[in-house]
Amino acid sequence: MSFHRAPFPVLRRYLTLAASRPRGGVCAIIPGPRTFRALINHFGGARPALAALPDLARRGGGSAAPQICSREAAAREIEAAEELGVAFVAIGESDYPQRLQMIDDAPPLLAIRGRRESLQMPAVAVVGSRNASAAGIKLTQMIARDLSEAGFAVASGLARGIDAAAHRASLGNGTIAVLAGGQDRIYPPEHTDLLDEILPAGCALSEMPLGWEPRARDFPRRNRLISGLALGVVIVEAAKRSGSLITARLAAEQGREVFAVPGSPLDPRAEGTNGLIKQGATPVTEAADIIAVLQPILGIAEPAHEIEPDDGARTADGAPEADERAHIVALLSPTPVSLDDLVRLSNSSPRIVRLVLLELELAGRLQRHGGGLVSLL
Amino acid sequence: MSFHRAPFPVLRRYLTLAASRPRGGVCAIIPGPRTFRALINHFGGARPALAALPDLARRGGGSAAPQICSREAAAREIEAAEELGVAFVAIGESDYPQRLQMIDDAPPLLAIRGRRESLQMPAVAVVGSRNASAAGIKLTQMIARDLSEAGFAVASGLARGIDAAAHRASLGNGTIAVLAGGQDRIYPPEHTDLLDEILPAGCALSEMPLGWEPRARDFPRRNRLISGLALGVVIVEAAKRSGSLITARLAAEQGREVFAVPGSPLDPRAEGTNGLIKQGATPVTEAADIIAVLQPILGIAEPAHEIEPDDGARTADGAPEADERAHIVALLSPTPVSLDDLVRLSNSSPRIVRLVLLELELAGRLQRHGGGLVSLL
Repeated sequence: MSFHRAPFPVLRRYLTLAASRPRGGVCAIIPGPRTFRALINHFGGARPALAALPDLARRGGGSAAPQICSREAAAREIEAAEELGVAFVAIGESDYPQRLQMIDDAPPLLAIRGRRESLQMPAVAVVGSRNASAAGIKLTQMIARDLSEAGFAVASGLARGIDAAAHRASLGNGTIAVLAGGQDRIYPPEHTDLLDEILPAGCALSEMPLGWEPRARDFPRRNRLISGLALGVVIVEAAKRSGSLITARLAAEQGREVFAVPGSPLDPRAEGTNGLIKQGATPVTEAADIIAVLQPILGIAEPAHEIEPDDGARTADGAPEADERAHIVALLSPTPVSLDDLVRLSNSSPRIVRLVLLELELAGRLQRHGGGLVSLL
Repeated sequence: MSFHRAPFPVLRRYLTLAASRPRGGVCAIIPGPRTFRALINHFGGARPALAALPDLARRGGGSAAPQICSREAAAREIEAAEELGVAFVAIGESDYPQRLQMIDDAPPLLAIRGRRESLQMPAVAVVGSRNASAAGIKLTQMIARDLSEAGFAVASGLARGIDAAAHRASLGNGTIAVLAGGQDRIYPPEHTDLLDEILPAGCALSEMPLGWEPRARDFPRRNRLISGLALGVVIVEAAKRSGSLITARLAAEQGREVFAVPGSPLDPRAEGTNGLIKQGATPVTEAADIIAVLQPILGIAEPAHEIEPDDGARTADGAPEADERAHIVALLSPTPVSLDDLVRLSNSSPRIVRLVLLELELAGRLQRHGGGLVSLL
């Protein structure tokens, strides 16, 4: 069974909602998108995964059983979402943004408000510093407007400065605001009006549950969605070590085009973009530079993110023997290693290794990195 | 006999001086550096080339014999040069700048003033707009100073704006001013004082004869020397279609590194440099960016410019038959063609084809282009 083709009954959404809404002490053991996919792949569906979760976490050595969102709580969230005009779209469903689906850590469930069709347009992310200069704002307007008129949806983060200018210049043809918090927790609050202007032709998108107040660390996490949605990311102004550079890095990792607007070396707001250009980002002075790069790849379907089908029976039983588990755990350290290496070194089957990793993760003892690497916490 | 190893007696300098100083109606038939090389290669020295010149031009169909600088006039120029502290250095001599010698159209003779040793330093050209901004001047100072302190000679064109700032910031360790006119015709005149400050540690260099007032078209011609002297060319500020972009193009053709300082797309003085970066120039915000690229190639000798030895006897006789000449001429048109193609299509020997081309050139009927291409005027 391929994960992408899995049906998404409401129970799977419960699992997702549970996964996205950690509470109290179990925060560390809540599975992220990769774990979610591993669970679904291993158990063949949300219901058996949910059922197996407490036992898995216990076997992995966790002290507390993971707290799972109740059916009632999930139903309440779905109801509240409907009142707000928010629809949940799960990965694998036709409304799920196609390119976003291909990233390594695509969110299992998106909360979407507005005109969902705008997510089917080819998108370009336009981001930059909150503390933007007048010149930066002007350039953003020119670039976002021209991209929008050329048929691209402009994606950004609804932040002050460059982000807001990018949205404002592309309201008419569809612009996508990617939120770091829940759909009812707009940040910054003064951009609620801007969001209202975005929704008629565009949409707002979040992977976080309703009621989620965005924390500082949710913004970099959110940035992977901005780049993941898009064919390419344009950085207009960015100081050194700014959030926009995180988006650029994520975009590069995701195989997205990275564009940067050059600026004077004497302008600190151009340090980040000039640095990106030095590293190989495409320099951009007008939208035509972006369109020239993206037009040729517009029609090309991305390779589907590879899902390794589990070998053997996809059941909750077939748990590893204690010594097999101990052997695999002994191979792990704080240094990230690949699943392939673990399989080779342990002489266990990939299915067993994955299961042990799942157990460890649910017990809060494992960290997953990009590229299929894992390390012990 | 290889051209590079040819001795350079004073007569060869006469030939050069003659070649560099067209007078009146013979302006069009004066050989340039490539013709000079072809003449020397064909006849084995300046004296036989000089002797053959009138006959060659006549056979090529020229109406007037090329006027040749007299021995007396050349002696007068050499004397005047000595009074001004100018030394003539011919290609192939040890004082001739090594990298400049390798370009396709290296001047046969350079007039040099100042500290000639500065021409043996690794050089970086720093050029840009005359109408420079304060930011451009400041950046130029920073970059030129740091390059100078890192042991590079800064080469530039003594122009207003970026050029002057580049020279001023590198006076102490040797900076090279490349002139478009003769050594006694400094342009702009108000930079005579700057030149005086350059000479103690650096030098001024010209391929033009004394007394030569620089014309508009001498500046682009001069620009090939600025880039040819250097390992790389840094363009600091440049509007569209500016002279600095010509230098950048020549640098690229000569296999030199091209560096450009980025600027805001809203700044017209950054249009040229941003355009260069889009075309692949290395973006530069500080001297370290340049040094990082040049350091690895510092010790590497450039491949010597290939001189094709003439086949057969290197004598003034062995002239082509009239129908052979007519056949070669018939193959020529205003569309540039290569020597190889002419040899192949004419069934004549390369030596004969070269000789016919020389005749045509001396008769003012041939134009030589880069890459060994020629066309009929």
